[in-house]
Amino acid sequence: MKPDGNVSKTGVDLDLNGEENSAASLLSASCPLPVFDHNNIVLGHGSGGKLTADLIDKIFLPAFRNPTLDKLDDQAVVTIGNTRLAFATDSFVVTPIFFPGGDIGRLAIHGTVNDLAMSGARPLYLSAAFILEEGLAVDDLRRVVESMRTAAAEAGVELVTGDTKVVNRGKGDQIFITTTGIGIIEHDSNISADRAHPRDKIILSGYIGDHGMTIMSQREGLEFESAIESDCASLNDLVATMLATTSSAKDFIHTLRDPTRGGVATTLNEIAKHANVGMLLDERTIPVRESVKGACEVLGLDPLYVANEGKLLALVVPEMADAVLEQMRQHRLGQDAVIIGEVVEAHPGMVLMKTEIGGTRVLDVMFGEQLPRIC
Amino acid sequence: MKPDGNVSKTGVDLDLNGEENSAASLLSASCPLPVFDHNNIVLGHGSGGKLTADLIDKIFLPAFRNPTLDKLDDQAVVTIGNTRLAFATDSFVVTPIFFPGGDIGRLAIHGTVNDLAMSGARPLYLSAAFILEEGLAVDDLRRVVESMRTAAAEAGVELVTGDTKVVNRGKGDQIFITTTGIGIIEHDSNISADRAHPRDKIILSGYIGDHGMTIMSQREGLEFESAIESDCASLNDLVATMLATTSSAKDFIHTLRDPTRGGVATTLNEIAKHANVGMLLDERTIPVRESVKGACEVLGLDPLYVANEGKLLALVVPEMADAVLEQMRQHRLGQDAVIIGEVVEAHPGMVLMKTEIGGTRVLDVMFGEQLPRIC
Repeated sequence: MKPDGNVSKTGVDLDLNGEENSAASLLSASCPLPVFDHNNIVLGHGSGGKLTADLIDKIFLPAFRNPTLDKLDDQAVVTIGNTRLAFATDSFVVTPIFFPGGDIGRLAIHGTVNDLAMSGARPLYLSAAFILEEGLAVDDLRRVVESMRTAAAEAGVELVTGDTKVVNRGKGDQIFITTTGIGIIEHDSNISADRAHPRDKIILSGYIGDHGMTIMSQREGLEFESAIESDCASLNDLVATMLATTSSAKDFIHTLRDPTRGGVATTLNEIAKHANVGMLLDERTIPVRESVKGACEVLGLDPLYVANEGKLLALVVPEMADAVLEQMRQHRLGQDAVIIGEVVEAHPGMVLMKTEIGGTRVLDVMFGEQLPRIC
Repeated sequence: MKPDGNVSKTGVDLDLNGEENSAASLLSASCPLPVFDHNNIVLGHGSGGKLTADLIDKIFLPAFRNPTLDKLDDQAVVTIGNTRLAFATDSFVVTPIFFPGGDIGRLAIHGTVNDLAMSGARPLYLSAAFILEEGLAVDDLRRVVESMRTAAAEAGVELVTGDTKVVNRGKGDQIFITTTGIGIIEHDSNISADRAHPRDKIILSGYIGDHGMTIMSQREGLEFESAIESDCASLNDLVATMLATTSSAKDFIHTLRDPTRGGVATTLNEIAKHANVGMLLDERTIPVRESVKGACEVLGLDPLYVANEGKLLALVVPEMADAVLEQMRQHRLGQDAVIIGEVVEAHPGMVLMKTEIGGTRVLDVMFGEQLPRIC
């Protein structure tokens, strides 16, 4: 049962075979475990910010030596036969499970489709695993499942396998859904966080903070003059449109990411740190709805750190940026796309932003749990 | 974004495109929803027996029209490019999370590896999605993760992508893990529940009930003279050995299943109903350890309905059965393999068993929750 020659993994050098340099030896008594600041898991470990990174760096990576996490991409790219595949998984634990613009089922489909699409893959097949709490209303389950059906149809993917577990009352929270997807990469590009390069333009596909502020407003019982709705949507078709901008240039999109947990600021920081480049944003260009601004002010939040579920960030070579932008604006999900800044050689690993009043502000990674259980 | 010619799906005809005959129209007002006997989810809906089947038939299938569930296989088989892939997912919610012979991490790797292997696939890559409860001891998480590393190495698979969510204290139960796997099918056989055929011999790979009774004994605080240990193990290498029995015959293994939730009796019933064949077992041949028998007696359980996590059932053409059995017995995980019965034309959809005292007993599907949260 040894892997044969036609099975390989792009950029992944994961050794689980117990050899000398394996994780087993790294974890042996002669090599102390990394110091982890907590004895117990806290909510912030799931919020996508510094604490999540800490958990990954100190608990998961030492065990699995998984360079796909180290690549900071939201999907693994593996080659089987002659085919490059993307493979991504996400658990969804959002509360409340129904919210304006979507529900946990819709989110579970779009979220995993988007993780696949951010490698430039065409998503094909999904699995869904349900953890139901005893007592869940069957009508709620039906509604979630129907939402998943609709969302899968919208995204053009098929749900082909699944699993259901039930846990005792008080040992879950209505419904948790884990979706996993397979997509096919049909172009030659290598789209990854580590490909970010100075002079790349940073394109944002539209208004930020809609999803996060929808959930928070629901939880806090806030009402605003103009309702906020989650932006949750599958971005695979938008990505295909972007990749089709030209057939004469190759590799013009270096990096794609959907700024979910931790928002635009955290996502750009992760890319900057990983590729060891700086970024300079222009605050005036970043689109935020008045309703989202208002909700953020009431709750003391910064929209740059608020989760999105239907937006993407693209790092594009400068000579192609306008053409890609134009292409995006023809698409329903990219009509408000803008260039919000660029990658720079200065201050590697840091994201700076020119503020509206002319100053410069450092945007750091989110610390702890700004918004727990947002997805 | 239309699927192209080289992407197809074996035996799957899932229509999510909103056409006339789609699930959307099936669910429309003109077509009433199937009657589901419960208003709320109960533990039995997750136990792998009649109630789980009911949930799948009446809630999931009408929405997704997913013939892979209908095939009663534990994995989807899809063709991408020229490559046949198996794709399987499972959530693990076992309690307690540590038990003799394993833990939830080990189970999460072996469980999904086995679902892939039951299609005859060679498992390659896994994803892992963690739902952690706030307050989980980090030392417990480390121990689970280390177990997963070891189990993945044993099975020869690589864990290439993952996700972590944290839920509030009292909204989860320490740790839930969802693993999803991709495997490659390198032979021409079509191994599936619906291929069960009269005269096939039914081979069981070893002692039954070890996993389920280990968990139950832990929960009930029972102690027995000889300790019971979970049998949890990856069966992919055993399956490869079985497939290698001969190169001169093809398709000699019709069906493979690991009898997890619901045990041997439920698994065989599912196959019998799906392939519309009968089965006749010989009780005297079914290996059950004395300690498991004892624990079952104390708790009023039948070992034939108790979950296994390292055993398989194989339906093999009669002329090859002895050769496959011999091959299995050379393997550490198949040394106690036996032929426990055969597929018959009589009583289609039913499993009958000749009892030790000479009578004949009908083995039905398990109803409700004999053993909740066993995996």
